[in-house]
Amino acid sequence: MPGQSPGFAASGVVTLTTDFGLKDPFVGVMKGRLVARYPAVRIIDLTHEIPAHWPAEAGFWLARSFRYFPRGTVHVAVVDPGVGSAREIAAVEAEGHLFLAPDNGLLAPVFDSAASITARHVTGSLLTRLGIDAPSATFHGRDIFAPLAAELAAGRLQPADLGVPTTDLVPGWIEDPLVGPGQVTGTVVTVDHFGNLITNIEARHLQGLAHPVVRVAGREFAVRRTYSDVRPGDYLALVNSFGVVEIAQAERSAAEGLGLARGAPVVVISK
Amino acid sequence: MPGQSPGFAASGVVTLTTDFGLKDPFVGVMKGRLVARYPAVRIIDLTHEIPAHWPAEAGFWLARSFRYFPRGTVHVAVVDPGVGSAREIAAVEAEGHLFLAPDNGLLAPVFDSAASITARHVTGSLLTRLGIDAPSATFHGRDIFAPLAAELAAGRLQPADLGVPTTDLVPGWIEDPLVGPGQVTGTVVTVDHFGNLITNIEARHLQGLAHPVVRVAGREFAVRRTYSDVRPGDYLALVNSFGVVEIAQAERSAAEGLGLARGAPVVVISK
Amino acid sequence: MPGQSPGFAASGVVTLTTDFGLKDPFVGVMKGRLVARYPAVRIIDLTHEIPAHWPAEAGFWLARSFRYFPRGTVHVAVVDPGVGSAREIAAVEAEGHLFLAPDNGLLAPVFDSAASITARHVTGSLLTRLGIDAPSATFHGRDIFAPLAAELAAGRLQPADLGVPTTDLVPGWIEDPLVGPGQVTGTVVTVDHFGNLITNIEARHLQGLAHPVVRVAGREFAVRRTYSDVRPGDYLALVNSFGVVEIAQAERSAAEGLGLARGAPVVVISK
Repeated sequence: MPGQSPGFAASGVVTLTTDFGLKDPFVGVMKGRLVARYPAVRIIDLTHEIPAHWPAEAGFWLARSFRYFPRGTVHVAVVDPGVGSAREIAAVEAEGHLFLAPDNGLLAPVFDSAASITARHVTGSLLTRLGIDAPSATFHGRDIFAPLAAELAAGRLQPADLGVPTTDLVPGWIEDPLVGPGQVTGTVVTVDHFGNLITNIEARHLQGLAHPVVRVAGREFAVRRTYSDVRPGDYLALVNSFGVVEIAQAERSAAEGLGLARGAPVVVISK
Repeated sequence: MPGQSPGFAASGVVTLTTDFGLKDPFVGVMKGRLVARYPAVRIIDLTHEIPAHWPAEAGFWLARSFRYFPRGTVHVAVVDPGVGSAREIAAVEAEGHLFLAPDNGLLAPVFDSAASITARHVTGSLLTRLGIDAPSATFHGRDIFAPLAAELAAGRLQPADLGVPTTDLVPGWIEDPLVGPGQVTGTVVTVDHFGNLITNIEARHLQGLAHPVVRVAGREFAVRRTYSDVRPGDYLALVNSFGVVEIAQAERSAAEGLGLARGAPVVVISK
Repeated sequence: MPGQSPGFAASGVVTLTTDFGLKDPFVGVMKGRLVARYPAVRIIDLTHEIPAHWPAEAGFWLARSFRYFPRGTVHVAVVDPGVGSAREIAAVEAEGHLFLAPDNGLLAPVFDSAASITARHVTGSLLTRLGIDAPSATFHGRDIFAPLAAELAAGRLQPADLGVPTTDLVPGWIEDPLVGPGQVTGTVVTVDHFGNLITNIEARHLQGLAHPVVRVAGREFAVRRTYSDVRPGDYLALVNSFGVVEIAQAERSAAEGLGLARGAPVVVISK
C-alpha cells in the first residue's frame, strides 16, 4: 500500500554486508565503483564476516540493524553460494529503506519482519540501460550491485524503476521459532565476537511464558536483564540489545564454555 | 585553566575504539546512529580489536594516537566489562580534543599524559533532554555514546553542557613504570600485528640511563634506532614511533620468538 | 608521452593498502593525518591484510583493482620490510591515477601492466618544504605517505612536483609467467578469503592454448566459466573477475582441499 508507506527518498548512505572478508580487495573495489559513480556517497560497512555462503546470517542482522540507519539508506547484501547461475536480484523497499541482494532467501528476514514492504526483481533491461550489461560471471557485488546502489543512493534511480512488484521471493534459510503452549523452540543463528550465542527467539515469542527459563545443552538459565546481573564466569540468558534471546557467560565465551555453535536448538519454557 | 587551554571546537570528526570486533554489525549500527543524527560526520576507526574487556589497551593507544587527528575530534572508546551496571560516562577534554568512554579507568592514560585537561561525568538529565533516555541495558555504544558523540561532533552540544568538572575519575588499569636509580621497570601492554612487544616505558623514562639495555625473558637487547639496524631474525629494542620502548625481531614476531605476551615485565638498565 | 596520457587531476579519493592489520591503531592514525591535512578527503581501504613484509601481493592487487576507482585517485601502499633504511619513495602516474609506495618492487606490477606510465622518486627537498622533515624512523605510512597523499589528493601538489621522471624503479618480487609452446607456467600469488588459489596467469597468456587445462598438485582441471558450472565440492579452474587464472572448489576451500599455498607452481597446458 504505497499510499500509506513512507516512500524511499535517497539519503546518500549505502551499507554493505558480505561474506567477502577484509583480507582481499573485494570490498575495496566495490567501494571504488560506488564512489566512481556517485562521489558524494557515504558508505558504512555492516559486516563482511558473514560465514562464507551462509545468507541466513546476513538477513538476520540486516532485519535487526536497518532501523539504526537514516531513512533513505540503500542496504546492499551479497552472500551468494550460487553466483554465476541464473539468479535474480531482489530489491525490497521497507519503512523508507531499500535492500538489494541476490534472490536466494537472504532478504526473507527483512521481508518477514518489516512493515510497508514492496519487493521487486531487478529487470535485465534496466541493467542494460545503465551500462551494467557485461558483468563478470563471478563478482556481481562489484559489477552489478555497486553501480546499481550508486544510482539509487544518488537519487537518479527510484525503486519503482527497478521492476514490477512481486511477492515471489525465494523463502528464507531458517525456520521461524516454534511457539507452543508454555514452550518456544528456536535456533542459535550466530555466535558473536564475545562468544555469545544469538538465537532467533524474539521478546514477543516469550509473552506467554510467566517465568521464562532457557534450556540449552542440558542446562537451564533464567532470563536476566544484563550481563552484570551475574558474576564473571556465570552463565545467563537475556533478551539482548537487538531484541532476541541470547545465552552469554559474563566476561567469558558461552560458545566455548557450553561447546555450542550455529544451528544449536534452544528451548524456552516457563517455570 | 580554560583561559590557557585550546578550547574544543568541533571538527566533525569522530574516532571509534572498541572491543566489538568486526564480525558482527555492532560497529556498523553505531555508525548508522552517528550518520542518522549528524549526516556530515566523518568517522574513523581507531581499532575494534581491543582484547575483550581490557580497557587498558584502549586508553594506552588513544593517549598516543589522538594528536594525529584534527583538533575538535570526538574520540569515542567503548570497552566495558561492567556494561549494564551503574557506570558513569566520562568526558575528558584535552588539548582541543574530546574523549567519551565509560568511567572505568579507560581514559586514565589520556588524563595522565595530556595537557589542559577538564574531566566531567555526563549528567543523566542531559541524556534525557537529548532523547537518549531509554537505552538497552547492554549496548551503550549504540544507544548512548553514538548519539551523544553525534551532537558533540555537530557542534550542537558543547563539552561544558555535559556536566560540572570533576577530578574524580576511576584510576587506570596499569601501574606507571617504576623509575629507580639506573633502572626502569615497566610492562608489555600489548603485542602488535607484527608480534612486536609494546611497553609502557616512554623515552623520557630512559633519560637517566647512559647506555640503555632492555632486559626481558632472561635476555638483553641494546636500544637501536630502527628495525633495519639489525639483520632479519635478530632481536632489537627501540623507542618506537609512538614514543615507547618496543622489543622487536626484524621481519619476525618477537612475541613468538621470546614466548612473551601482554603483561610481561620489562626492565631497562644502563650498561 | 604526457601529451597522450590522461593527466592526473585529483578526485579527492585516497586508497590505502598495507600489511598493518586492523588490530592496532596504525591505519587509524594514517587516516587521522590525512583528514587533518585535507578535511574533505575520501579514504577507501583496499586491504590491510597483505602478508607481513610481502610487497608482491600489494602490487598484484593494486594493478588489478585501481581501474575500479575514479581517475584522480591517490593509491597509497605501504608494505616495507626495509622501513628505516635508505629507501626511496616511488610515485607512479598511470592512466590518470597516482601510486605512492616504498621503492622496493611493490609497484612493479602496476608499472608492468598499466599504460601511459610516468615514474618518479620523491625528492627529499619536497618533503622538507612540506614540513615532512622529521619523521619517525619506523612509521613512514603515518609520517611521510599520509601527509604527502593528502597534499596530492587536495590538488595542492601535482605529480610533476614530486621529482624528475625515472625508469629506474626496483624490480618486482614475482617472475612473470613463462609462456612456451602449448604451455604456460605461473605461480599462486595469494589465497583469497574463500580459499581460492589466485595465480598470476592472465587470460591473454592462454590465447595460444586451444583447450586449456590447469595442472596443479598432480591434478588437472578444465577451465570453466563460473563456480556454479560444477557441483558443490568439485574443483574447477576459471579466469576470475580480475582476469587471472584461479583454482577453486565450489563452496569449499581449494587451498585446504589441495594442500596448497602462496608460491605453488601452476601449469596450464592444452588438451
